[in-house]
Order: sequence, then structure tokens, then C-alpha cells
Amino acid sequence: MRGSGLTEARALAVLREELADFGPRTAVGIGDDAAVLEASGRRQVWTIDACVEGTHFERKWLSMEDLAHKSIEAAVSDVCAMGARPIGLLVQLTLAPWLTTTLLRRLAREQRATGQRLGAPVMGGNLTAGRQLELVTTVLGELPGRALLRSGARPGDQLWLVGSVGRARLGLLALQNGWAKKAALAACLEAFRRPRALASQGRALASRARACLDVSDGLRRDAPRLAEESKVAVVIESRRLERLVDPGFARAARALAVDPLEAMLDGGEDYALLATGPQQQRPRFARAIGRIEAGGGAWLERGEDRVRLRGGFEHRAPGGPAR
Amino acid sequence: MRGSGLTEARALAVLREELADFGPRTAVGIGDDAAVLEASGRRQVWTIDACVEGTHFERKWLSMEDLAHKSIEAAVSDVCAMGARPIGLLVQLTLAPWLTTTLLRRLAREQRATGQRLGAPVMGGNLTAGRQLELVTTVLGELPGRALLRSGARPGDQLWLVGSVGRARLGLLALQNGWAKKAALAACLEAFRRPRALASQGRALASRARACLDVSDGLRRDAPRLAEESKVAVVIESRRLERLVDPGFARAARALAVDPLEAMLDGGEDYALLATGPQQQRPRFARAIGRIEAGGGAWLERGEDRVRLRGGFEHRAPGGPAR
Repeated sequence: MRGSGLTEARALAVLREELADFGPRTAVGIGDDAAVLEASGRRQVWTIDACVEGTHFERKWLSMEDLAHKSIEAAVSDVCAMGARPIGLLVQLTLAPWLTTTLLRRLAREQRATGQRLGAPVMGGNLTAGRQLELVTTVLGELPGRALLRSGARPGDQLWLVGSVGRARLGLLALQNGWAKKAALAACLEAFRRPRALASQGRALASRARACLDVSDGLRRDAPRLAEESKVAVVIESRRLERLVDPGFARAARALAVDPLEAMLDGGEDYALLATGPQQQRPRFARAIGRIEAGGGAWLERGEDRVRLRGGFEHRAPGGPAR
Repeated sequence: MRGSGLTEARALAVLREELADFGPRTAVGIGDDAAVLEASGRRQVWTIDACVEGTHFERKWLSMEDLAHKSIEAAVSDVCAMGARPIGLLVQLTLAPWLTTTLLRRLAREQRATGQRLGAPVMGGNLTAGRQLELVTTVLGELPGRALLRSGARPGDQLWLVGSVGRARLGLLALQNGWAKKAALAACLEAFRRPRALASQGRALASRARACLDVSDGLRRDAPRLAEESKVAVVIESRRLERLVDPGFARAARALAVDPLEAMLDGGEDYALLATGPQQQRPRFARAIGRIEAGGGAWLERGEDRVRLRGGFEHRAPGGPAR
């Protein structure tokens, strides 16, 4: 049975089917960045995220401080993409055999600092032993107003990008190729190791945007999710995306022999926000990269051509076959 | 560096030091069964727990239904031990290469049924790939009244046990020895595979007990935690504990050549509740097994002798040395 190759997409489909009824307190269940629940008369946003050695990172790529930072920012990003304010987090830590007291202390110090900076302190957690280091982070947030869902996009909306995409992917490629010392790649390495959840932007979008999600798996994979949840067509305009390529990013892509546009489409883990809303409500910090139309699917428009965006990067069980 | 042998106890000490400041919303941080937080003007209880293949279970020991059940009940038990009512849960699922669609479907169905039965539906979660199957469950609960902490025990209190201890351990030993078919062990196997969080008992204790924790790692390891957090001596009276050995449990212990009292002291994963309170407030469902005195540490009293209880079973990183 080893290597049955159950993909995350297939597994998600099964879970959505089987867990369909989320109970009366759940306003939004599976299918968005976070669950929205009614508790104590107010709305909360709640998410869980994993950072697993061998799947999401290799030990030699990240310092303990990087790991603390990256695992927390990634989890908090889901709460920010809903327009919520993070208020606290818990961490399930799986201790690998190689983890020493000194390394653990460095990890915990940065967890504390990162949590406090985000207004979401580490309130507790759990410990267990395992074969590799893992951090599973759950974040609770409060919604000042309505939740910013994946399902709110409407035909006629503009498509907005907040933050950058592709840098973290180039950083990952640099690490995989052993080119971590190249000066042209320094900013991309930083993007991979120290992403930032766009907390204030998420909250500002809540009153202006109709839909939002965080780009954790790349536009190629996340734009179709927005299309599916909103039942619309998401059109990314290639010329607008290309305008966001700055000289530093172009240099980094060249150093890795990667097309910058491809890196922007495939790159996850920058935790940019992809949002939609009426053109006149676009905040200054959001860049227009396309539009929403009636129909379905996500599309890259180049002049008169349209290419459908599907799939993209997917974590797969080690030992599982490529499909 | 492999096999540095960082124990969970040592790791917890490091984390408590480094994460000392839990922020203004946190009423109770590390050191209790769950965190207590102030959110939206009311108190919530929040916990996270892991169920890891190779650490907490072997695949051949548990059906998908057992696993769904056990992982949720274990996590919910922490919320019950605080006197809170569970309202929902999220599950981070790490997909092992051997997991098929059929197995996943069976897992999800039982997760749904178990969550609904406990009044805490699965509201969402996260998926990732990994080397082994893992379920990390986070549970949110509401506190109708005050939180039942580990730190509330006072000298003069009686020591109460709710539920049974030792059965799940005998079930585990039966599985490890390949004796899962012996009739004398059936009830113990059931205790290991299908533990129950003591939800209504936890809530009833909230108005009667002064302190409570759930016995997830065995009395030998959890009684000292109660002593430490309350700064008291916890005295377990051997003759009272022995009175709880019924013929079925004695038979199971005999079949495994284990002393029943030792099994009761070492056995975790039954998710019994250990509580303290004034003798006259003991609920009918709680059995008196000892008392609280001034001083420190946890003790087993046999006639005039006292033996200090320390340590006990600890999950350890595979490959790490025994200390």
C-alpha cells in the first residue's frame, strides 16, 4: 500500500464530503483560510497549520529563529487573510532526536518574540517525540467586522495582489541548489526564511474587498481556489503581473535560470494576499493584476490568448509517486 | 547530534522559562491541561494534542475508526479536565504514504461522528504530507464558570479519582505482546482503543473540586504535576487504590503477568480525572484514593511506609537513548 499517492487535493475532497456538517456554531468550515465560529456571542476565526521537517523544510536551510518565525507567520497569515486580528496561538512541537536544549531555547525565544510582535502570544501547547521536527500552530483571531471569505468575488471586480509573490520560491530553489551565498539571491532567501503575515493590510481589506485568500501555494494553485469558491472566472493579466518584476527579482531569477513570471505563478510561501473588489475601492497598497469575470476557472491572459491555470506545487508524502 | 535524548520534561522546563509572558489575554498558560484565555469578554479554554504513528500508536494496533475516536477524545479530555464545555475542533492531518482514499474516508466519518457526539464538531483543519500518519487536534471550549486548575489543591482536601486507570495500559501491553485475541484482555483493549473524555463529570467537578487534571500519562507522572502546580503533597493511599481493582482487571493483569497496582500507577491514556476537594463535596461518581497534605511531591502510602512517585512513562524520540 506504500506510495498510494493520495494527493492533498484528493484528500481535501474526501474530507469536505465526509465532514460536511460543521455544526450550528460554524459559520465557515473547510474551504477557506480559516474556520469562522460563533462563540460567546461574537465571531472568531480559527486556523491550524503545519511546518514539517522533510516536507516543508530541511534542517540545514533554516535556523531555529527562522523556523519559529516562519511557522508562526504562515499560520497567522490565514487569520489575516480573513480580515481578523490574531489574539493568541498554541504550538504542538514534535521533538526530533537531534534537537538539543540550546536549539530548543533559541526556537522558543523567537516564538515568543514573533507572537508578541503580532499581538498573538504563545499561550501554551503540547510536546511529543517523533522522527523529525514539526511545529503545528493553531491561531485564534477576532473579527472586528465581517469575515473576508474566498467565496465573495463577483464578476466585474478587480483582482488585487498585496505583497509579492515568487521571492520565497527563488529562495527555496537557491537552497536546493546550494547557492545560498549568492548576493543576487539574498532578498529571496530572506523572503523564504522570514515571510511576514500581512496583518494590517488584511484588516484594511476587510472593509474594501469582497474576497480574499493568502497565496501560500502559489497563484497557479490558489487562484483556481478563489474561482471555485466564488464560482467565477479569475483572469490574471500577464502584462500587469510582469510590471511587478523589479530589477532585483529579475536578477535573482536570471541567476537561477528561471522565468520570472513562472516563479511568480508557482511561488507559494510568500504569504501575499490575493483579493478582489470594486476598482474604485482598491487600497493603495494593493496592485491590480487582473479581473473577475462570469464563468469558472483561473486564467492567465497574454494578449489575446488565455491559458488555464491548474495544479502547481503540492506537498506529497515522501515515497509517494509523482502522478 | 542524533539521540541527544532531550526528554519531554526537560523540553517543557525550557519552554516554560522562555515563554514565561503569555500576554494580557492569557489567564493560564503552560503548566495546565489547557490555556485559559479572555476573548470577547468571556473565558475560553484552548488546547492542542498530538497522536503520532510510531510514538503514540502502531498502525496495526488501531483501525481508522479507533484512531479518529482516540485522537479526539484525548484532546477533548484536556478541556473537560478544566471544567469546560468543548465547542469545536480543528484537525491537522499528516498523510502517510500508505493512506488510501478508503482509509481516509473511514477516518473522517468517525471524526465527524465523535465530534458531534461530544458537541464539538470538526470545523476545519489542514493537510500535509509526511512520513507517518499524524493527527494534531486543537479543541476550543467555553467555561460556564471558573476554570478548574491544577494549582487549586489545598492541604486537607481529599484526593479523588473519576474513571479508571490502568486498563488502557494493559490494552497497550496486550497489543505489544501480540495477545490481542485473549478474552481476558478485551475490556482493556477497548479502553486503549476507545477512551472516553469525561465531559459531564468534568463540568460537575467544576463546582465541587478545587483542582483537577486528566491522567493522560499515568498517576505516577501526573500526581507529581498536581503536587508541583498546587505546591502541596499528594498522598495516594495504596489500600484505597487496591479497592478499585475489580475481578476483570485483576484477571487481565494476571494474563499479562503485571501487578495490578503498578498498572494503575503507570497507566496513562485512560483519561481518568484526578481531582481534589473538601471531603463533604465529593461527588458520587468520584472515588476517594488519598489526601492532600502540606509539603511537596506525590507519595504512595502503604501502611506506615511512603514511597515517592516520580517520572514514569515518557514518549521519547525514536533513536534517543534511555536515560
